[in-house]
Amino acid sequence: MNEKRRSLESLLKPRSVAVIGASRHDGSLGKKIFDNLLESSFKGPVFPINPNAKEIASIKAYPSIFDVPEPVELAVIAVPAEFVLEAAEQCGLKGVKSLVVISAGFAENGKEGVNRQRDLASICRHHGMRLVGPNCMGVLNTDPDVSLNATFSHVFPPRGDIAMATQSGALGLVILEYAKNLNIGLSTFASVGNRADVSSNDLMEYWRDDPDTSVIMLYLESFGNPRKFARLARSISPHKPIVAVKSGRTAQGSKAAASHTGALATVDVAVDALFAQTGIIRVDDLEQLFDVSDVLSRQPLPKGNRIAILTNGGGPGALAADACSAAGLELTHLSAETVAGLRALLPVRASLGNPIDITDVGAAEYRGALSLLAGDNNIDSVIVIFIPPVFACPEEVATVIRDLAPEFRRRGKPLIASFMGQRGCVPGTTLPAGTAGVPSFAFPEAAVHALAKALEYSRQRQKPKGTAPEFLDIDRERAKKIIDSALDGWLEPDTAFSLLQAYGIMTQEIRAAENLERAIDAAQEIGFPVALKIDSTAILHKTEAGGVSLEIGSPEELKQAYDDMMEKMRIAGLIKGIRGVYVQKMAETGTEVIAGINHDAIFGPLILFGLGGIYTELFQDSTVRITPLTDADAKEMVRSVKAYRLLEGFRGAPPADVPAIEELLLRLSALVEDVPRIKEMDLNPVRVFGEGRGYAVLDARIRLGSTERLALPK
Amino acid sequence: MNEKRRSLESLLKPRSVAVIGASRHDGSLGKKIFDNLLESSFKGPVFPINPNAKEIASIKAYPSIFDVPEPVELAVIAVPAEFVLEAAEQCGLKGVKSLVVISAGFAENGKEGVNRQRDLASICRHHGMRLVGPNCMGVLNTDPDVSLNATFSHVFPPRGDIAMATQSGALGLVILEYAKNLNIGLSTFASVGNRADVSSNDLMEYWRDDPDTSVIMLYLESFGNPRKFARLARSISPHKPIVAVKSGRTAQGSKAAASHTGALATVDVAVDALFAQTGIIRVDDLEQLFDVSDVLSRQPLPKGNRIAILTNGGGPGALAADACSAAGLELTHLSAETVAGLRALLPVRASLGNPIDITDVGAAEYRGALSLLAGDNNIDSVIVIFIPPVFACPEEVATVIRDLAPEFRRRGKPLIASFMGQRGCVPGTTLPAGTAGVPSFAFPEAAVHALAKALEYSRQRQKPKGTAPEFLDIDRERAKKIIDSALDGWLEPDTAFSLLQAYGIMTQEIRAAENLERAIDAAQEIGFPVALKIDSTAILHKTEAGGVSLEIGSPEELKQAYDDMMEKMRIAGLIKGIRGVYVQKMAETGTEVIAGINHDAIFGPLILFGLGGIYTELFQDSTVRITPLTDADAKEMVRSVKAYRLLEGFRGAPPADVPAIEELLLRLSALVEDVPRIKEMDLNPVRVFGEGRGYAVLDARIRLGSTERLALPK
Repeated sequence: MNEKRRSLESLLKPRSVAVIGASRHDGSLGKKIFDNLLESSFKGPVFPINPNAKEIASIKAYPSIFDVPEPVELAVIAVPAEFVLEAAEQCGLKGVKSLVVISAGFAENGKEGVNRQRDLASICRHHGMRLVGPNCMGVLNTDPDVSLNATFSHVFPPRGDIAMATQSGALGLVILEYAKNLNIGLSTFASVGNRADVSSNDLMEYWRDDPDTSVIMLYLESFGNPRKFARLARSISPHKPIVAVKSGRTAQGSKAAASHTGALATVDVAVDALFAQTGIIRVDDLEQLFDVSDVLSRQPLPKGNRIAILTNGGGPGALAADACSAAGLELTHLSAETVAGLRALLPVRASLGNPIDITDVGAAEYRGALSLLAGDNNIDSVIVIFIPPVFACPEEVATVIRDLAPEFRRRGKPLIASFMGQRGCVPGTTLPAGTAGVPSFAFPEAAVHALAKALEYSRQRQKPKGTAPEFLDIDRERAKKIIDSALDGWLEPDTAFSLLQAYGIMTQEIRAAENLERAIDAAQEIGFPVALKIDSTAILHKTEAGGVSLEIGSPEELKQAYDDMMEKMRIAGLIKGIRGVYVQKMAETGTEVIAGINHDAIFGPLILFGLGGIYTELFQDSTVRITPLTDADAKEMVRSVKAYRLLEGFRGAPPADVPAIEELLLRLSALVEDVPRIKEMDLNPVRVFGEGRGYAVLDARIRLGSTERLALPK
Repeated sequence: MNEKRRSLESLLKPRSVAVIGASRHDGSLGKKIFDNLLESSFKGPVFPINPNAKEIASIKAYPSIFDVPEPVELAVIAVPAEFVLEAAEQCGLKGVKSLVVISAGFAENGKEGVNRQRDLASICRHHGMRLVGPNCMGVLNTDPDVSLNATFSHVFPPRGDIAMATQSGALGLVILEYAKNLNIGLSTFASVGNRADVSSNDLMEYWRDDPDTSVIMLYLESFGNPRKFARLARSISPHKPIVAVKSGRTAQGSKAAASHTGALATVDVAVDALFAQTGIIRVDDLEQLFDVSDVLSRQPLPKGNRIAILTNGGGPGALAADACSAAGLELTHLSAETVAGLRALLPVRASLGNPIDITDVGAAEYRGALSLLAGDNNIDSVIVIFIPPVFACPEEVATVIRDLAPEFRRRGKPLIASFMGQRGCVPGTTLPAGTAGVPSFAFPEAAVHALAKALEYSRQRQKPKGTAPEFLDIDRERAKKIIDSALDGWLEPDTAFSLLQAYGIMTQEIRAAENLERAIDAAQEIGFPVALKIDSTAILHKTEAGGVSLEIGSPEELKQAYDDMMEKMRIAGLIKGIRGVYVQKMAETGTEVIAGINHDAIFGPLILFGLGGIYTELFQDSTVRITPLTDADAKEMVRSVKAYRLLEGFRGAPPADVPAIEELLLRLSALVEDVPRIKEMDLNPVRVFGEGRGYAVLDARIRLGSTERLALPK
């Protein structure tokens, strides 16, 4: 066990706990926490610390932590903010291993609070103590050997294998209540508060190796260090599902000063990308968080999308079928044996399609039908709907489901129930920890949605893991020279091209020429036909201003085009800013795409891809990923825009060189990972040629910024 | 009161009820229903009919309906299917006004059942009895002067102003249970079963004028007569909201043999169109059905989208804010007075933005804050979130909300609560019928979604009501001649154009010519430049086969093009099917759109619109409406495709003549309403010119079919 993990054990599995601020007064958090620790029957001594009380709840109280006659592993501090630093210092001197600081009045509360929190963190660091909070609602462990409720919620949830971290203490209260009501079992729970030390990242790292945890639930409001979060998530999600709600979807909005392609990326899009790339299951709200975690915790992962629905009423079956179609779950064809078995079993009025409507029958028919479905290899998972009937007994049907659950589990088939109107575990089906019960939903749609998310995760796990390839031909030295000699701001077009070339990105050859003669020389060097583009800092839209001339085939045509262009500039009064012209080799025909980079203050670089022309703008048909990009990411990225079909060869057009685009995106990722000064990049357009013929960047805008990075918390 | 309405009163407000099949045996539906009628304290006599019992539940039983010594208004029949016809006949002879037939074994059950149902309906018609069912779970009325539970559900929901019709009896059981649990009040409820007589349409018509009903909830699986449904809904929804779940979204799939544009329309798209055009609020599932109806029933309609969120925890506030953004609700800026008032009222740690996080305070602060929000004219509606706190008392906060509800109501502002973890009416806030309580949701997201639906409805109500315009220039006689002389199948291109022209639809002039000389004559008549198109029944894709030549400027060019084309045909072996050529005037440049008609067996004609080129195919960017189309529908239709911006003048292009497109769609609607033989139409492309310059249909395919319509139930 590494040092870090051990340090969190003192927090989540302490052998003794002190409550600083424990009190006899109803209405104090200290009393609440102390009572909760006793009520959960914590397996170790609990020491109340209070200078003004001799005993609390008949337990001897100590004036200070120093007076406790034994070592204390965890101290929960619930005194007013102004007394917290002193209490923490004393804990440090006493040798306490971990602190949970409940008290508010820290970084959430103005400048003074920020300073206080900094000092608190430094005391903890100095004494080697881990710190949860401040401004949190505590931590909790249902392990019967620990049985720790160091929170101010009176709710101690049932034992289970779902771990939960929340950035909102208020939601923590709701979460514990909800888990208890629905009989959803937790392993450990932590409200991380202001995250002065322990963050969701630290907890995820702990839970990765925690044998008691098989599902991780997160409520996130912001990311401390998204890059570390991403690395962790990538390492955890292939083994344990992470289900997350991220709020604040729209708070930040898009940046005003972003470039054309950059402006299309918003922060929430980055969160989506982060979650998708690292295998995190994103859900929209707390209800779904529990629904999905419940299914993942209690049931095996579905192996495929073929579902069977068993119902005793047509209406709910129809609603479930609709939900399946919407979620991409296929109502499978039952095997001939299953159909024959059902026919023998059920009354003639029963419908033997899928959904199977067994009509108003009893528990015996449910048992027979479920047994058949368990054995049908055409089925990957089963949803069983039960409407409180007029005569039949729900308890009997619940017993059937409980009896058959192990059979489904043995065959690796999820079995999910909807006892309509009732949410929670099927009555009587909660099995001892280690085996698994059958989740039940009040409405079949919720069952379908949760199953669909489980399938999404299952598929993600089956996918080949991508890697970020090494490109051996990258000329980092050349790139470094270019970057080191460039000022902040937009690079000159030819410098931008040089930088791209250093990273092996194909550009359409272009030359700056200060006059006609040089332009003709340049054209002859690169070969006709060429395009002529004005080089002026004063002109924003070159084409509209008459500053672009295409398909020039000879020196004579070039002279003509040059003279025409300068004449237009003179007439338009634009002659002043002109530094010369660019001569660019005409590119062969192809499909135009755009690629770009936008730098987010929190997430770092985001890579954007879309089709050129009007698709991206008109249909918002573009896609974003975080870096580093893997080959699998690049593959998926190109295929995730709707206009991808244009690249495949739409309506008889020849297919484009898709692997070359993927490579372009991977090289962009390598470039921006190496050169954090790149704040914005807009390759627009990139012309993609036919299969095996590559692409060429026709125009590139790159903006450098200062290299300083935000000081990120761990 | 009209005859029809009176006939339904005998069903929903009977003065006496007989239960045919009432029995003493537990486990019989007859006993259940009889017990339920007694338990709900029906305000009139209930007569058990059973030839084998002298009394049932201490009430004198009668061997047959004839033996009942008084008139019977409603008879509930719950005997096996084979005895139903006789019972119904006897009821008719006795003078019973309405039947509810619970028994199954009718049209849902094979050919014999279909015949039995036909006979049952005919008995009822013969005796002038209304019939609910067969194969239903009954009807219910909570009016204290009636107090009728003629269902086999033991649940009698609370009194309220929501009426409900369900096509699924199984869901009916769930619905009543759910309504009771959440304290959602119903006025009347009917399970319509097989709809041999009374349909959802009949009930809607009844509820339209029912003073006890202010919200109509529907669970639909199929439409009997969607055109009547549409007419009814249009007349009701401006006064009473209709909230509906329609299942079977995907069951039917799209037709295999549909034409290009037609194939894009699926049945569920038609349902969406029907609901949107008639102002019905479509929800996805039962939970939303109740959520939305609850808000509409208890709260005023929101006047606008400016919302304020009051919370005692940041996390739930953030989740609610996200949900608002996603639903198009704007977190408004509070007025300066409100902010000042809140500042004076709340602790410094409170956050005075929006959401307003009042932190862990008590009922007094909730009262003060809500009073301020009630008076703030920047706010259209308020969601108040309450997390079960550690110390404060939920009941006190509930009291505050109850106290302030009338003030919000007086100002026409919806007030919705989320007592987190608790679903239902805010404890203690159910006010007597006539006033209104405050709905409360377990999660704030559900509150936001329900409010957003209420706003959508409110806006729909505020919109100007469209009308289907009369076009005085339509030449119906000419159209009739064309139709009457045409066979079923695809019309000749020039016939199709003539039909369109008769309806004032602009077509690009085209002439059939059987040889070169005639072609030159035609071109000279219509004027160069022209396009030449092969006229052959054997060639499907003219352009690909070399059968189209554009921009022909003179007789000489025409001869050349003609000879080239025929040569190509000869080489390709396609000469056989050629009947000649078409000569079409070249159209000026413009934006291409497509318009079409697809005939659905249930819905009748659907009108489709989209942009030409690849948009419709690549981005599924098209839209569908049912007919008759109103001017408002046409306006919205054109604007509802994403590519609409191309018509507005995208990236400097001149704007297109949008009013002309709207008129085209309205004329198409008029045409297809007049000519039901049109089964399919594909105007592709239609070239739209600049503002005020109209459009021209360049190519039209129209398919006629037989005029027989499905025999639709009322």
